[in-house]
Amino acid sequence: MSITEENNMEGRKIVVAVDESEESMYALSWCLGNLLSQNHKPTSTLILLYIRPPLDVNGYLFANDVIATMEKHNSDLTNSVMRRAEAVYKNFNTTVAVEKKVGSGDAKYAICTAVEKLGADILVMGSHDYGFFKRALLGSVSDYCAKHVKCPLVVVKHPKAAKTRDDNLMHL
Amino acid sequence: MSITEENNMEGRKIVVAVDESEESMYALSWCLGNLLSQNHKPTSTLILLYIRPPLDVNGYLFANDVIATMEKHNSDLTNSVMRRAEAVYKNFNTTVAVEKKVGSGDAKYAICTAVEKLGADILVMGSHDYGFFKRALLGSVSDYCAKHVKCPLVVVKHPKAAKTRDDNLMHL
Repeated sequence: MSITEENNMEGRKIVVAVDESEESMYALSWCLGNLLSQNHKPTSTLILLYIRPPLDVNGYLFANDVIATMEKHNSDLTNSVMRRAEAVYKNFNTTVAVEKKVGSGDAKYAICTAVEKLGADILVMGSHDYGFFKRALLGSVSDYCAKHVKCPLVVVKHPKAAKTRDDNLMHL
Repeated sequence: MSITEENNMEGRKIVVAVDESEESMYALSWCLGNLLSQNHKPTSTLILLYIRPPLDVNGYLFANDVIATMEKHNSDLTNSVMRRAEAVYKNFNTTVAVEKKVGSGDAKYAICTAVEKLGADILVMGSHDYGFFKRALLGSVSDYCAKHVKCPLVVVKHPKAAKTRDDNLMHL
């Protein structure tokens, strides 16, 4: 194994999975501060990946204007997420190229597929830290990605989430 | 939230969980190439954390020389892991301070406790990618850590492991 060669930092593609949550914006800022700092050569590409919920209208009888409203809502959400992400990376003096990608579907599957297709070198995502019951019901996107993506995965926990969990544990 | 302040790179403590596996050595090299490169200011500390298996002799009648042999084996294993890790980080022209910590016990609990005690900013670990049955039996150290550590966790998959999984999937 040629270690230095395999870990070449030039031309890395760093995918950050963003969504409407504060956790994902914190993960993006962590990435900018730790993986794409000013000290890095500006050859890396930061890819902001947003997976919007699927607009599943099959099997339902929706009027066209309802579908249009749902589509508009999805589109507004995408713009809002990307604007928030833009505000975060403009806060850092980074010179890396930024690309924006939008997918659709179940986040965990869509993220893994996109990471593969984009040939990502690193995937960064926030952790929602749902707790036992919600995790059991919803599954965890980061758990799924940890098992299925080939590239290194960074799971960034928001400090507030970690603190809340500690407080909950103290009351048990 | 003051993003730039919270992600200050100065004085970071980066803990890499090392063991006798090739996966953990690959994770260490990934960390050196991506989180502790020459371009970083040398104020970060790299902490190599090795958790050796517990020497549980309670309830068994072992002769003293058997216990001594087991202890020697554990000690040899620790030295061997640390020597391998040393060879990896000497391969990189890193100027960061390196500390070595050795703990004992069930790896997943001991790593989480150590990360907390050391006040780590990042935990890096390899992924063994056991597959469904072994994972169900043994549980996954990285799964457990993802749920329980407060700091960002980097799970680095060895390229060979990712390739093997793909080959297995192709034969299903």
